[in-house]
Amino acid sequence: MGESSLNLLESATKNIKMEEEEEVEREEEQEIDPESNNPLNQRLIKRSRTLSSSPLALVGEKVSYIESLDYETNENDLFKDGWRSRSRIEVLQYIFMKWVLAFLVGLLTGIIATLINLAVENIAGYKFLAVLKFINRERYLEGFLYFMGINFVLTFVAAILCVCFAPTAAGPGIPEIKAYLNGVDTPNMFGATTMIVKIIGSIGAVSAGLDLGKEGPLVHIGSCIASLLGQGGPDNYKVKWRWLRYFNNDRDRRDLITCGASSGVCAAFRSPVGGVLFALEEVATWWRSALLWRTFFCTAVVVVILRAFIEICNSGKCGLFGAGGLIMFDVSNVTVRYHVMDILPVAVIGIIGGLLGSLYNHLLHKVLRLYNLINQKGKMHKLLLSLAVVLFTSACQYGLPFLAKCTPCNPSLPESELCPTNGRSGNFKQFNCPPGHYNDLATLLLTTNDDAVRNIFSSNTPHEYQTSSLLIFFALYCILGLITFGIAVPTGLFLPIILMGSAYGRLVGMLMGPHTKIDQGLFAVLGAASLMAGSMRMTVSLCVIFLELTSNLLLLPITMIVLLIAKTVGDCFNPSIYEIILHLKGLPFMDANPESWMRNLTVGELVDVKPAVISLQGVEKVSKIVDVLKNTTHNGFPVMDDGVVPPVGQVNGATELHGLILRAHLIQALKKRFFLKERRRTEEWEVREKFTWVELAEREGKIEEVAITREEMEMFVDLHPLTNTTPFTVLESISVAKAMILFRQVGLRHLLVVPKYQASGVCPVIGILTRQDLLAYNILTVFPHLAKSKNRQKRN
Amino acid sequence: MGESSLNLLESATKNIKMEEEEEVEREEEQEIDPESNNPLNQRLIKRSRTLSSSPLALVGEKVSYIESLDYETNENDLFKDGWRSRSRIEVLQYIFMKWVLAFLVGLLTGIIATLINLAVENIAGYKFLAVLKFINRERYLEGFLYFMGINFVLTFVAAILCVCFAPTAAGPGIPEIKAYLNGVDTPNMFGATTMIVKIIGSIGAVSAGLDLGKEGPLVHIGSCIASLLGQGGPDNYKVKWRWLRYFNNDRDRRDLITCGASSGVCAAFRSPVGGVLFALEEVATWWRSALLWRTFFCTAVVVVILRAFIEICNSGKCGLFGAGGLIMFDVSNVTVRYHVMDILPVAVIGIIGGLLGSLYNHLLHKVLRLYNLINQKGKMHKLLLSLAVVLFTSACQYGLPFLAKCTPCNPSLPESELCPTNGRSGNFKQFNCPPGHYNDLATLLLTTNDDAVRNIFSSNTPHEYQTSSLLIFFALYCILGLITFGIAVPTGLFLPIILMGSAYGRLVGMLMGPHTKIDQGLFAVLGAASLMAGSMRMTVSLCVIFLELTSNLLLLPITMIVLLIAKTVGDCFNPSIYEIILHLKGLPFMDANPESWMRNLTVGELVDVKPAVISLQGVEKVSKIVDVLKNTTHNGFPVMDDGVVPPVGQVNGATELHGLILRAHLIQALKKRFFLKERRRTEEWEVREKFTWVELAEREGKIEEVAITREEMEMFVDLHPLTNTTPFTVLESISVAKAMILFRQVGLRHLLVVPKYQASGVCPVIGILTRQDLLAYNILTVFPHLAKSKNRQKRN
Repeated sequence: MGESSLNLLESATKNIKMEEEEEVEREEEQEIDPESNNPLNQRLIKRSRTLSSSPLALVGEKVSYIESLDYETNENDLFKDGWRSRSRIEVLQYIFMKWVLAFLVGLLTGIIATLINLAVENIAGYKFLAVLKFINRERYLEGFLYFMGINFVLTFVAAILCVCFAPTAAGPGIPEIKAYLNGVDTPNMFGATTMIVKIIGSIGAVSAGLDLGKEGPLVHIGSCIASLLGQGGPDNYKVKWRWLRYFNNDRDRRDLITCGASSGVCAAFRSPVGGVLFALEEVATWWRSALLWRTFFCTAVVVVILRAFIEICNSGKCGLFGAGGLIMFDVSNVTVRYHVMDILPVAVIGIIGGLLGSLYNHLLHKVLRLYNLINQKGKMHKLLLSLAVVLFTSACQYGLPFLAKCTPCNPSLPESELCPTNGRSGNFKQFNCPPGHYNDLATLLLTTNDDAVRNIFSSNTPHEYQTSSLLIFFALYCILGLITFGIAVPTGLFLPIILMGSAYGRLVGMLMGPHTKIDQGLFAVLGAASLMAGSMRMTVSLCVIFLELTSNLLLLPITMIVLLIAKTVGDCFNPSIYEIILHLKGLPFMDANPESWMRNLTVGELVDVKPAVISLQGVEKVSKIVDVLKNTTHNGFPVMDDGVVPPVGQVNGATELHGLILRAHLIQALKKRFFLKERRRTEEWEVREKFTWVELAEREGKIEEVAITREEMEMFVDLHPLTNTTPFTVLESISVAKAMILFRQVGLRHLLVVPKYQASGVCPVIGILTRQDLLAYNILTVFPHLAKSKNRQKRN
Repeated sequence: MGESSLNLLESATKNIKMEEEEEVEREEEQEIDPESNNPLNQRLIKRSRTLSSSPLALVGEKVSYIESLDYETNENDLFKDGWRSRSRIEVLQYIFMKWVLAFLVGLLTGIIATLINLAVENIAGYKFLAVLKFINRERYLEGFLYFMGINFVLTFVAAILCVCFAPTAAGPGIPEIKAYLNGVDTPNMFGATTMIVKIIGSIGAVSAGLDLGKEGPLVHIGSCIASLLGQGGPDNYKVKWRWLRYFNNDRDRRDLITCGASSGVCAAFRSPVGGVLFALEEVATWWRSALLWRTFFCTAVVVVILRAFIEICNSGKCGLFGAGGLIMFDVSNVTVRYHVMDILPVAVIGIIGGLLGSLYNHLLHKVLRLYNLINQKGKMHKLLLSLAVVLFTSACQYGLPFLAKCTPCNPSLPESELCPTNGRSGNFKQFNCPPGHYNDLATLLLTTNDDAVRNIFSSNTPHEYQTSSLLIFFALYCILGLITFGIAVPTGLFLPIILMGSAYGRLVGMLMGPHTKIDQGLFAVLGAASLMAGSMRMTVSLCVIFLELTSNLLLLPITMIVLLIAKTVGDCFNPSIYEIILHLKGLPFMDANPESWMRNLTVGELVDVKPAVISLQGVEKVSKIVDVLKNTTHNGFPVMDDGVVPPVGQVNGATELHGLILRAHLIQALKKRFFLKERRRTEEWEVREKFTWVELAEREGKIEEVAITREEMEMFVDLHPLTNTTPFTVLESISVAKAMILFRQVGLRHLLVVPKYQASGVCPVIGILTRQDLLAYNILTVFPHLAKSKNRQKRN
């Protein structure tokens, strides 16, 4: 990560923090000093508590409270009972359901993707046909008004739905999915409302001709389907159907959402292996061999569905949805020929892609910060912003083609290529030109984005576009790509980048002209690839997606060179666009690799600047539990027993660390009135009488909702059976880098820090680390000298 | 894993143990009671020590001593200094070298793969041409003797090299690579001798017409190249070249070998994405996004090299190497058509594949055990076994075609298909038939294995083979597939399985006859896929390999169904063939998923049955260190300081756990005479004067080689600067399942178990777990009741 970009990110995050001061403050009232009200201070020393751990995120332009997910197996007595009592049939049921769910995810994603394509092609198709009719009759102003009007209405529908019903449906959704699979539960991300708004909004926004794609939204839709299927309905943690109750945990949901994301990519690009690799490379944090196979099964189902629909539509039953729609990059008829010297233009495209990609990331980040300021002023502002963008887009798309000169049709074209065309799609649009001529800028602008990509990728048409037209197109889509992404409709990032990239790719191809054997259409493809790599920094999945779309192994080497160069150049300047958005949204995402300065900091030092650990006794008074729950926001508490005699012989009066108990389970215990009159351990049957593991898996309820009488306050709760006895621990001397690796690899929510000293009077837990404590940004705010040493190291 | 198979494995392992009693006993003299000679017993209680941890393996039919690899970052003071002092240029050097090495791995693998192909095609080609000459002149006996003689000599060369120079070059090598990437260092696996023997042996064995492939050996050769490049020569841990010194650790070598393995697969099947996925799915234990991209880069280089060679050879400059050799499955000209009812034969093939695959695994396991008995009798026996197998193979290949009836040529064949042929390759061999007729069994038997596959996959030739011929072929290759794999030459497993599978696939296709639209060649492909899935249990990588070879997305759904069914059926009976071989060889491989009974056992219970931990003081006497090193075989020792005053305030006399020191570093300290006259801590400069991190990374030397004078024995060593202060720890109450997940996910060698009690007098480390302690088989020998509870659970 480049230095400049880091500073940029930091200042951005600070900026957001400032902007949302009120909310933070409100939260902080609960947060800042949980101990001030209660005498729970058990640590021996305490320097200062400045380690920021504000669990806030900006999602859908709104600050939300974020929780971590529990990917760790909670091994308390009840859950252990649950596993032991699972019969072989129930295990088979579970496995069977896993595959059924995977099948359904693929099936529904495929169907919805087809429906979106059908809707877009028909709505946009009839819109363009009507506009072309006006133009044919030279009624340009009426055509303009009609075009503007339709686009305005379509965008209005998409935006009003997003603004009023599901703010989380705006944007691509991929960063939030990435965060979810990393262990961050963004609220309202995978609900039924979000999904419906996303589908309708995506159809509206894409049909309106905005500079955005349906690819990102499809990934989000796939994940929504997976999440909804896994929980058997729109309610979190409340699975009612008997067969689904084993899926009522964060691990299985994580696997399902991974399947959903890869199905979405597959549906967008019709690339089954590419979809799997996209999930593996870009989206998922944890990966297992078994998951590989299941995601692949999902994407294969999607491909089958898509193919079936294409075959049905080829017979003309789908309105204006014909050859278009799904097959986006059709360069399979290009005969690829290149010699060694062609490496030069290819390298040039790679470098341009890297430079432009990082510049795009940088500028988009600025624009998004500006948009956040506007969007925060209220729903009306959001709506107006979206509508302003669509008006500007439509005006440019309609007006700019008048600047282009008409080009006479090339008579040597094959018969399959009509010139000029006036129909729904087609490579040579007549627009305002005399018969036998076409307007090359209208070919690119007055069409759907998918068709524009197809036209600019068109091969064996070396003289189709004028340089000036491509330059205008490129400039326009640079501007549109920056101003469109942040508006309150479902926006995909793939297509704008492909459009920009293909424009300069084709330009480079035209400049190279006779010096190369590579087709101009192929140059456009390479340009698109380079900009994607330069901005999104994906490599293998992009490469495979292009490989599957073009079905041409010969393309592989040059695609790889372009991607490698573009990614390397881009990485010199700033992180990938998804990481920038993650930071902007304030999602506590854990990076794969620890920073190098993390090796020089121990978790002991980290724990010292945190508030003291609040621990509970194995058999605890109700009043203490209520007190702790009300006055802290922690989600896990260590459970200890004082004065036990360990079985190791001559030691008396040791402190035993029994484990970690979750806030949710404490609340369950209070709700269920699992109270004892005296301070004693419970028997197994007493626990089983009160709880089942199925209930314990539901994580509903807040402490405020539990009413406890004064008498009950004096009673006791035996926490032992509810405690996870197997928390992961690290020594205080371990470096933050290693703790982070452990945290991420095993997928933890809480990591206990144990002392390296062994003596009576030492507390067995000296701190608890959470995701927030291990984030580089948070650590640097407390230990600024580490950042300095980092910079020094760089200068060396 | 099925129950029966488990029993089978256990009995097998027992059997091997019994067979190698002498070796084990010899080792055990060192192993069994290290403490009997020295009073290092520091644990408070100790029940019995029965947890087996014999670090022995059967590699190349010889028992070897196996060490674990160190994938964990060793954070001691010296290494930390090393990182801090790395300048930006050195970091860039490191990154640059990573890519250069990846490129070289791909380049060399590609070149060697081509050379092997060239050699095989030419040697086998001229052999067959000569034999056919004899047959044309009806001098059958002379032809037979010639055929036998050549095959005998070729096998003799391959076998004598393997037996005398590199026993580890025998077999496919893939299980050992899998084990290496899991953290098990099999000795002499990746040396220069092994690689050269593997290359020559593979050429000899494949040219001799044995029922084995060059695919597995190619994977091994790729890994050897990677390993040799990474260490700059054939010596382990002794990197001399300045630019390579950062690669002198097990992590970077692991990454390189992963690259090598995927290059090998890519070179074998010309499938870049399949190669990457093979490494990801089957071979690698750890995976990172960065690795994905680097392996893909490697495989792309391989593809480019292969393509370049094919183009050169197409112009006829490669002797008999023409269209054959590399393009193995050429079904791209098949028009795939199928309707819903075709799911039935496809499912049948999948079920047969699963059943036969697991049966094959079962029988091969028995044969390998028998072969081990023979091979152990000495080099002569190994050689004789190999030669007996080649004589049997040649006799059958030459003799059986005489049983087949001659078939008249079909005049409706396209002109490109000659019938009958007498040349090097070709689909319709004349053999002993009159003109205008061909011998279908000779087409399959008297040819190279690659050509046999191509012929049996041939499409649009529905009546080419008689049922009886295919049955004979299938029966013969079932026998050959079982008896050939264990002989002392480089054997690949892919091709025998493909041959068997395609035979019954084509048979099913012929039986289905008019009831299906699927081509018989496609049935053969599906049969091959099903048997591979049934035996090797790979899915996604196989699917992608077939996808890339056939370049036909339409095949995807039926291939997936076949693979899914075959794998599911096979998994009901026994583990994959690679796992069986891993167990047979005694390699301590850690499975991805812990067994369910592991949740019911804590590491505390596991540690109780292990010998007590042997720990060292922070400043330790030389005599004690020598004593410990000589009398134990442990590779890591915890370092503790007694009576320290921790900074936590009112506690006196605590025991501090400083960290873990490696045996190799202790030996380095002794070798370098890092001795102190009095018991004190050293200064930083004293350490730096003695050691550099580069030297510390070299792990040579045995304690026996270090001579210590009597005076020195009374001196002290300050172990603090050499100690890894950040070992990973678990609480004693954690379940074995979770400890195993941690161990595998983070890639550990030693895992310290800390007590859950905190009191003076409790030792801060109650045990150290290694790979051996966490293996299911080892645990079950000590806790047999767990196996029972497992069975009980199954019966429920």
